[in-house]
Amino acid sequence: MKYVFGADIGGTTVKLGFFDENGELIEKWEIPTDKSDKGKNIVSDVCGSIKEKMESRSLSSSDIIGVGVGAPGAVNEEGVMTGGAVNLGWDVFNLKTAMEEKLDGIKVIPANDANVAAYGEMVKGGGKGHKNVVAVTLGTGVGGGVIIGGRLITGATGAAGEIGHIRVDDEETAKCNCGHTGCLEQFASATGIARLAAKRLAADDAPSVLRNAEVLDAKAVFDAVKASDAVAIEIAQTFGKYLGKGLASVADVVNPEIFVIGGGVSKAGEILLSFVEPEFEKYVFPPCKGARFALAQLGNDAGIYGCAGMVLFEG
Amino acid sequence: MKYVFGADIGGTTVKLGFFDENGELIEKWEIPTDKSDKGKNIVSDVCGSIKEKMESRSLSSSDIIGVGVGAPGAVNEEGVMTGGAVNLGWDVFNLKTAMEEKLDGIKVIPANDANVAAYGEMVKGGGKGHKNVVAVTLGTGVGGGVIIGGRLITGATGAAGEIGHIRVDDEETAKCNCGHTGCLEQFASATGIARLAAKRLAADDAPSVLRNAEVLDAKAVFDAVKASDAVAIEIAQTFGKYLGKGLASVADVVNPEIFVIGGGVSKAGEILLSFVEPEFEKYVFPPCKGARFALAQLGNDAGIYGCAGMVLFEG
Repeated sequence: MKYVFGADIGGTTVKLGFFDENGELIEKWEIPTDKSDKGKNIVSDVCGSIKEKMESRSLSSSDIIGVGVGAPGAVNEEGVMTGGAVNLGWDVFNLKTAMEEKLDGIKVIPANDANVAAYGEMVKGGGKGHKNVVAVTLGTGVGGGVIIGGRLITGATGAAGEIGHIRVDDEETAKCNCGHTGCLEQFASATGIARLAAKRLAADDAPSVLRNAEVLDAKAVFDAVKASDAVAIEIAQTFGKYLGKGLASVADVVNPEIFVIGGGVSKAGEILLSFVEPEFEKYVFPPCKGARFALAQLGNDAGIYGCAGMVLFEG
Repeated sequence: MKYVFGADIGGTTVKLGFFDENGELIEKWEIPTDKSDKGKNIVSDVCGSIKEKMESRSLSSSDIIGVGVGAPGAVNEEGVMTGGAVNLGWDVFNLKTAMEEKLDGIKVIPANDANVAAYGEMVKGGGKGHKNVVAVTLGTGVGGGVIIGGRLITGATGAAGEIGHIRVDDEETAKCNCGHTGCLEQFASATGIARLAAKRLAADDAPSVLRNAEVLDAKAVFDAVKASDAVAIEIAQTFGKYLGKGLASVADVVNPEIFVIGGGVSKAGEILLSFVEPEFEKYVFPPCKGARFALAQLGNDAGIYGCAGMVLFEG
């Protein structure tokens, strides 16, 4: 039996996983992400943790097929962080060769964290059984990962799948973090839903349980939807209209079999999909209509599963 | 030396090409497309023409690496025309196996015609030297082909690259051929530009050479732009705004290095790109900004070059 490691590097912790050659998780653990000194210790910390694990299990380099790594920034096909990683303090550098040097030549395959999570959902989660998958992460922002024919699409600079910045509204005047206006992220992220809710409540005096919400966030909105609150339903419809429209554009370009919706907002459950699917159908080019919608299943483990999967199936 | 055939099946003619194993064109010719009887003779005609050519050059099956085929409809990875081909009268069927049977087992690789032309522009045309290419065809409609990491993206049903149906305007009330409103094709195709021109001329009495144009088409518009006609420039700006915006969405999803613009409208030349690029830059997610723009170079031969290329580099 041979083995694989996955390391999903986040702004607070690095999630690590030890897998067998069939992609089954044997053990997972976390180490803190040390962002001091422009994050220069992170690579050594991650490699050190992997080597410790190998030692404790009496494994040598030849027992390890490879290490998959997810990092919060654009990563190109050569393993270069083409724009660095702002959240970690990293400048542009070749993550692949940096890790391979510290791991005595064990093969390292790095990719963008959202793409890696998408890959995880394809191999073991909501997209299992499919080879043409778009994973959509509705968190603080809106991220995405595109897998076509079983292969992760990274693009020219590793920025493929940045679907949160597709323009879905020409009237919007508020600015997105990226500097533009009308981006999907402004309507479909957790932040975006909170913004839609505040705007809707300010528009008139219609009664709504949301007026008494302690925190007016995406959870409050979908909880109120489940309680049949009319104003909350309107907000969810607006969210669904924008997300459906944005994903229709995605489908016109890459024609996936399935969209897998994850991230904090997706904790609302299946009801969320019911607001998105009809709007998607309304906007998508008819031959691309067949795409299904499912919820992500792996939560925070999607990244490590994807890391292992990349090594086993893409490497 | 081994050889490759390419066959680009269109509604009027089938373009055929005979290539060496380096992808160099040795000979090209055409046969009419026989659309009678739901196009049931087309496969035999194409295979017959290929076999004749083999005979005249004293070649046997073992001299042929394969045959690439472009067809006007969605083609999935198994070579099935998933929606048939309306223009040829074809229903759903497996084009790959149908042709392989008639060609004594020579390997056949079919793909959508727009995708094949995109592939041709990557290997020998405007996208040469790049592996992440989106080819855009501005003809009667707007088609596209997406190549990432040197591989053609076909998607779940072979409908990937249908970028003409990305929604770029929420105000439009006229219907697109696909049944929706506000599709890119309604503004950036030859037909779309003619429509924009007619609308602009009707809006007021501003003087323009276009008022005397025999035919108010895309060519007339760009000829007038070259003569510094202010109204024509406005029309081209509107065209550029919509195309730039649509391609920005495409870039957010697949992050190409280069867009290669072809089709009848592209005969306007480099001046066309000058209306698109600044609008693209305005809308695209900043990390995807690097994409360049170039004109297609192979014209009607893009398809046969792409057919040969698929066999040599994808097969």
